[in-house]
Amino acid sequence: MGVRWTDQAARNLESLRRNAPLVHCVSNLVSLAFVADALLAAGASAVMAHDESEVEEITSRADALALNIGTLTPRRLSAMVAAGRRASVMGKPVVMDPVGVGAAAARSAAARRLMATTAIRMIRGNASEIICLAGGDAGRGVDARHPVAQAQARARSLAKSCAIPIAVTGEVDFVTDGVRAARIANGHPLMSRITGCGCAATALVAAFMTVDQDVTRATATALAYLGLAGEKAARCAAGPGAFRPALLDALYALTPERLAAECRIMESGNEP
Amino acid sequence: MGVRWTDQAARNLESLRRNAPLVHCVSNLVSLAFVADALLAAGASAVMAHDESEVEEITSRADALALNIGTLTPRRLSAMVAAGRRASVMGKPVVMDPVGVGAAAARSAAARRLMATTAIRMIRGNASEIICLAGGDAGRGVDARHPVAQAQARARSLAKSCAIPIAVTGEVDFVTDGVRAARIANGHPLMSRITGCGCAATALVAAFMTVDQDVTRATATALAYLGLAGEKAARCAAGPGAFRPALLDALYALTPERLAAECRIMESGNEP
Amino acid sequence: MGVRWTDQAARNLESLRRNAPLVHCVSNLVSLAFVADALLAAGASAVMAHDESEVEEITSRADALALNIGTLTPRRLSAMVAAGRRASVMGKPVVMDPVGVGAAAARSAAARRLMATTAIRMIRGNASEIICLAGGDAGRGVDARHPVAQAQARARSLAKSCAIPIAVTGEVDFVTDGVRAARIANGHPLMSRITGCGCAATALVAAFMTVDQDVTRATATALAYLGLAGEKAARCAAGPGAFRPALLDALYALTPERLAAECRIMESGNEP
Repeated sequence: MGVRWTDQAARNLESLRRNAPLVHCVSNLVSLAFVADALLAAGASAVMAHDESEVEEITSRADALALNIGTLTPRRLSAMVAAGRRASVMGKPVVMDPVGVGAAAARSAAARRLMATTAIRMIRGNASEIICLAGGDAGRGVDARHPVAQAQARARSLAKSCAIPIAVTGEVDFVTDGVRAARIANGHPLMSRITGCGCAATALVAAFMTVDQDVTRATATALAYLGLAGEKAARCAAGPGAFRPALLDALYALTPERLAAECRIMESGNEP
Repeated sequence: MGVRWTDQAARNLESLRRNAPLVHCVSNLVSLAFVADALLAAGASAVMAHDESEVEEITSRADALALNIGTLTPRRLSAMVAAGRRASVMGKPVVMDPVGVGAAAARSAAARRLMATTAIRMIRGNASEIICLAGGDAGRGVDARHPVAQAQARARSLAKSCAIPIAVTGEVDFVTDGVRAARIANGHPLMSRITGCGCAATALVAAFMTVDQDVTRATATALAYLGLAGEKAARCAAGPGAFRPALLDALYALTPERLAAECRIMESGNEP
Repeated sequence: MGVRWTDQAARNLESLRRNAPLVHCVSNLVSLAFVADALLAAGASAVMAHDESEVEEITSRADALALNIGTLTPRRLSAMVAAGRRASVMGKPVVMDPVGVGAAAARSAAARRLMATTAIRMIRGNASEIICLAGGDAGRGVDARHPVAQAQARARSLAKSCAIPIAVTGEVDFVTDGVRAARIANGHPLMSRITGCGCAATALVAAFMTVDQDVTRATATALAYLGLAGEKAARCAAGPGAFRPALLDALYALTPERLAAECRIMESGNEP
């Protein structure tokens, strides 16, 4: 295995802060500001742009691309396709967040179209979204109705069929590339009481992918980083209002050393 | 009268937290994140979607619909019309927030079109917006230039002509169905020093309408809940910056018991 | 010179709070809420509207117009052109924020088009943006890669060729009208770790321009006000998360007297 993933988490965070990778987010409009702030707090840079008139050029200058299908419009979808194609051609990491994929046929179609036209390297969603994306029942919208455990088998088969890692975030995050898997036991329930935490997770994974070639590991370590920040934020927040700024402060303050010491990533090899 | 409205406020909040109704917001882009966060903090769920390609399906899965004409575009208006029609057909509660209705002819036309095509069940605005909607002078934009008292007669006649409750929020909120009225003396001036408090109020009313059939009462109790949260938030906030997260924390922390004990709703029967 | 600019800063802030000018922002979608909140916290009013169907009317009712080319779309650009023309005809102050002007050809074209069609009275950007706008190298996106000092000569020549003041914000802000210059030594590094601080700066300059005819001075005093608020906010913020609300609180709490006492504006006459 080489380096333990908990140690790699520290290395990744260190590299990210040294390199300050620029992540181009074609993001939904609800979490636009928070995703940018989370990237900045982590030590990355962010550029938010979502129109076809400019996304290709912006993707060209960025180090990674994060696509997000929330608050979808046909025009933003076209922009995502264009940006995705450019990033694919240039070999840049692309991640997709299938926000509320079960909530409307247009979102499912958008996710499928992005998967067909872009070399997506990682998909992160909540359990309901991943179940839906893997062909299961839809759920009513953007909130996770299913526990993570229920999505694991489908995540695994989706990872196999797409040949990319799939991440399911929730009580305990689950990342699988179809063979290997990792569970990340960091995090806090308040993370699901503010909008945009999932979107930020996906963007942070994109940032980590610029410093770690092992996508599964990059994903697991990014989620551990965000989850641990969430734990620290929850300690000084009485509710979801104070939690949001506290989460940004924790992303900003967390050192690689503390991350290595306190992140709880459990790797496992072949799973059934 | 049956249950006093202060007690009903507690029941409504309790029901809302038990049911976690999903509110579909076709909202303006300024307050998108805050409205979603306010619904989450209260215990409801939120789905923000504003394109005609997906709103009908999303409305179908939601428990209530909140329409908001701020940062208006023709495309978002079409989406609001489509979502409103679907909600009307399905008998789901629809509320409208006529943000800045006096600021441009397009917004007035939008409000009229929504009122003509959708079974809107409640309208909430500030005094200037309600005066304008009822045919009075426009004011210069989105901020309330008129005191609530000045809008009461117009609110009453608008309620009568539309046959739905009208809410005017400000120093003391006023809700009328044309015959009955309620005044809510909760709230704090800082609520008008942050953007989106009105939008959040409207969305919270939509959430309360899913648990209380009496729309006037649902409106009054939702406004009392938000207002009381505002009072509590102001106690620990030095200014509008700290006030926003504190308001979310107060929405989150407020118990039905405290709401019943501290909300100040004054009902009155026939008014001239 | 008459009144010292530090004293004028206090007068401007006092006038702004007395007049509560309404600033129409055609703003990028990332910083929409924060820009509105910053204007409200300062004592101004804000109206955010960006569609061609309504911007002209809204500009007509506003006291100043702030144009921002971030998250650009062709439709929003058309709206900016329409709003800009109306404001020009009516003699209202118009400012432009060339967000990420080097990141894509569409943004450069947009900036040029606005400069050609609108009587823009002030442009504020970071060093990279101003260098790019003045014909220099682009940089990779929205974050400032260049130090302010490196942009000064180009800012000066841009100010001369456009015959308007140019502001470059960064470690020490620099404002020039081509002949006179001012440097503002207020501010804090955390201001560049949250999104939207630059956008808010531009909008605040627009607000200050409604109370001070000397645009260079209005710009310098507005930047000093924001910078000083940033210093005060940083004193009680552990990181960028807490910094954002603290900055709004500081804008809200700062008195004209404290501003006069603590702002550090250095004017200089003819510069080479």
